[in-house]
Amino acid sequence: MIEESDTDWLDTVKWNDDGLAPVITQEISTGKVLTLAWMNRESLRKTRELGQAVYWSRSRQKLWQKGEQSGHVQRIKEIRLDCDCDALLLSVEQVGGIACHTGRHACFFYGLKQEGWVAQEPVLKSPEEIYKS
Amino acid sequence: MIEESDTDWLDTVKWNDDGLAPVITQEISTGKVLTLAWMNRESLRKTRELGQAVYWSRSRQKLWQKGEQSGHVQRIKEIRLDCDCDALLLSVEQVGGIACHTGRHACFFYGLKQEGWVAQEPVLKSPEEIYKS
Repeated sequence: MIEESDTDWLDTVKWNDDGLAPVITQEISTGKVLTLAWMNRESLRKTRELGQAVYWSRSRQKLWQKGEQSGHVQRIKEIRLDCDCDALLLSVEQVGGIACHTGRHACFFYGLKQEGWVAQEPVLKSPEEIYKS
Repeated sequence: MIEESDTDWLDTVKWNDDGLAPVITQEISTGKVLTLAWMNRESLRKTRELGQAVYWSRSRQKLWQKGEQSGHVQRIKEIRLDCDCDALLLSVEQVGGIACHTGRHACFFYGLKQEGWVAQEPVLKSPEEIYKS
């Protein structure tokens, strides 16, 4: 049980062996689950400080401020922790209405059908256009 | 990109080094994110087959049919996979309206406040009552 006097809020999170925790990000206006990403202590601290989602990129092994290239920033409305203290849930406003690098609203766009995984959601903007330099 | 002819749907998922993938479970009627759990190949296969959520318990290192003790079964309405093919999203009907072992509706009940993490959601049924033998 977490005490009300808990101030070491970053230590309360049970980071895994790699120092990470999975983070579910949900759009406040639609309830849509946008992404599953990862955070370390520093990214969670920055997320709270900036009021914008900052994840840990496992592929690039560095902090990754969501929207830094695309402009598709996620503005934090609420940060929650689960009963086991090892998973986080962000409630956000998704700037630009696009969370996925494929140009879709959300990342969970493959639906399991009789014939296998089938892409379900429209591409709202091409990745080329999103990530043009 | 996943081909339409994809039939090896279990191989499409990029299981991690432990053979697992994180699974977000969302209640279809409310949009509430209920749990973050884990699956291996076998649990995903069984989930599809039974139409009920079957996870992999990392603490007990065995398959765990959600609700096997509590009766709080999760009936599958849809199974989705994300753009990186390494995270799953279940849309479910939560039997009994309780997904959390603490007796709350959902597991993400600690909200981050000025003073730290504060429990936000009511306990609907005591764990003693849920798990009585």
